[in-house]
Amino acid sequence: MSKFWSPAVRELTPYVPGEQPRERLIKLNTNENPYPPAPGVEAALRDFPADHLRRYPDPESRALRAALAEELGVAMEQVFVGNGSDEVLALAFQAFFRQARPLEMPSISYSFYPVYCRLYGVERRTHSLDAQWQVDLDAFGEGAGGVVFANPNAPTGHGHGRETIAGLLERVSEAVVLVDEAYVDFGGESAVPLVEYFPNLLVTGTFSKSRSLAGLRLGYAVGSRELIEGLERVKDSFNSYPVDSLASALGIASLADSKHFEACREAVITTRERTRVRLEALGFQVLPSQTNFVLVSHPEFDAAQLFVGLRERGVLVRHFNTEVLRDHLRISIGTDDEMDSLIEALESQCRQGHP
Amino acid sequence: MSKFWSPAVRELTPYVPGEQPRERLIKLNTNENPYPPAPGVEAALRDFPADHLRRYPDPESRALRAALAEELGVAMEQVFVGNGSDEVLALAFQAFFRQARPLEMPSISYSFYPVYCRLYGVERRTHSLDAQWQVDLDAFGEGAGGVVFANPNAPTGHGHGRETIAGLLERVSEAVVLVDEAYVDFGGESAVPLVEYFPNLLVTGTFSKSRSLAGLRLGYAVGSRELIEGLERVKDSFNSYPVDSLASALGIASLADSKHFEACREAVITTRERTRVRLEALGFQVLPSQTNFVLVSHPEFDAAQLFVGLRERGVLVRHFNTEVLRDHLRISIGTDDEMDSLIEALESQCRQGHP
Repeated sequence: MSKFWSPAVRELTPYVPGEQPRERLIKLNTNENPYPPAPGVEAALRDFPADHLRRYPDPESRALRAALAEELGVAMEQVFVGNGSDEVLALAFQAFFRQARPLEMPSISYSFYPVYCRLYGVERRTHSLDAQWQVDLDAFGEGAGGVVFANPNAPTGHGHGRETIAGLLERVSEAVVLVDEAYVDFGGESAVPLVEYFPNLLVTGTFSKSRSLAGLRLGYAVGSRELIEGLERVKDSFNSYPVDSLASALGIASLADSKHFEACREAVITTRERTRVRLEALGFQVLPSQTNFVLVSHPEFDAAQLFVGLRERGVLVRHFNTEVLRDHLRISIGTDDEMDSLIEALESQCRQGHP
Repeated sequence: MSKFWSPAVRELTPYVPGEQPRERLIKLNTNENPYPPAPGVEAALRDFPADHLRRYPDPESRALRAALAEELGVAMEQVFVGNGSDEVLALAFQAFFRQARPLEMPSISYSFYPVYCRLYGVERRTHSLDAQWQVDLDAFGEGAGGVVFANPNAPTGHGHGRETIAGLLERVSEAVVLVDEAYVDFGGESAVPLVEYFPNLLVTGTFSKSRSLAGLRLGYAVGSRELIEGLERVKDSFNSYPVDSLASALGIASLADSKHFEACREAVITTRERTRVRLEALGFQVLPSQTNFVLVSHPEFDAAQLFVGLRERGVLVRHFNTEVLRDHLRISIGTDDEMDSLIEALESQCRQGHP
């Protein structure tokens, strides 16, 4: 604490991202893609003229937004881009959720949402997941100042179909509904086609997971023109140029290669299902997942001890030390070889009867 | 306006950056550097392994902060980095200036400061420039909740020496003093050595101007550990990874080449003084500048008309349509050839007796 901080800063509880270890580990802790970005990204990197960097980027990122709009089947004016989807989410909380009524969200979801609430003074109301650890959308909406949830949800992995989202939007028409689709490409159903019908729907996405570009920081939002304009007003009061020239060029190159994109996401899905079968054979309970991770627990072994044992064996996964999640591990889906190493490391712990 | 916006968003007046024109113009409107970034930046771009982009960056940007710390003669823990100095400034306003007492700033300075105030609900008190269009630091400090100014100031070009800043800090010890040094490398005196003595001093800088990397979005702040920690708390409540992996690598490469850096800034300074003499010969009043731009006015010609005439002749400068600045043009310093074109275009207008 410092006397120089704004009083509100003393109340913040910052988000804690997964570790980026310096030693060599099989890294299954931050839901990164095990496959490289599209070959065209490498080519765009090699071809980019360094001299262009002396100019500011296009503050409106028109080229990248046009490419995204084509990919998503919407107009460029319905697309907003930012420095990672975390920034896009933060700007959306500012633009839409500082309301008199509370923001509704699931009790278990992306743990950055409550952090944004504290940063922007947004009151929140949480709804418990149902018995299958799924977001209970029926509970949402009465008097909400806004709604936010990840779909598929993190770290649980379940996603609702488009019709269920449409049902929510039929009920909630006076507040913004933000559907965070960071993981949608691994088996979820996108709500983007609904933006045409619901002016209060905002869908966010990222290049970090299915496009293997976490290091580049590119995220986006899709919605009605009035929602995109709200985001632009906040962005233009914060940072005129959040997306740098290189990120824009490389993002466009990524979007141009749908074959690589499809191959990588299918490989991740296949490995996920193979991993699930093997984890279940070891006695783990594995929540069905439409993402590039699985949330698992074991009736006999303590998750925190498994986490430590895995790390000793060179495998890093994520353990959330919260009351509801402390019996679970979230395991990102890597290559088949990486998942073989994970399974071997778990087998050796389970065989010993202790982690 | 939209019913979905947070009420506060309706009150925003976003910052308007200088135009990034699509046609070919001699671009002297956004204070970009006319020289390319260091050759090592190009090499770092060619050598960067695209596969690294699938991983998240180091959320603490340790490598870049260490390189900056060495350059600036401080400890890594005293350095904060962000996605352009605009982002760093915005986070600083949140971290330090949301106080019961008003933030003090010059009446003419970087026009993003009042925008941040509206975004974060910061009350501000402005002090007029003195008769020489210099920031009157003697007027600052009584009961301030914070102080912010650009030094050298924009768009006026004058900078105070380190002793004057130290004098202000002797008086103002209970609130953060933010010195924005975006332009310091073109002839100003940096206040960075004072951070050792004043725990409430925060100095910001950018790679956009003197390092020719506006397109990359890299900015930084230097201060006491408690101020840097305040910035980190806000950043970690907003975006864990604001600096992407490529920007970090290229920024480090830029810092490694002091020879190129010195050569470019000396070239800009030489061209600035040469341009000043020629502008004065045309009857312009040119404020003395320690930056990479000059603020000029002409007793006979209307600035707005000169702006239009220059644009018709292929030269883009900046005209601020505000009461105090509408008689002035801000002209960025380009290459000697570019400034020759500017002078010729102005000569032709002045010769005709009308723009």
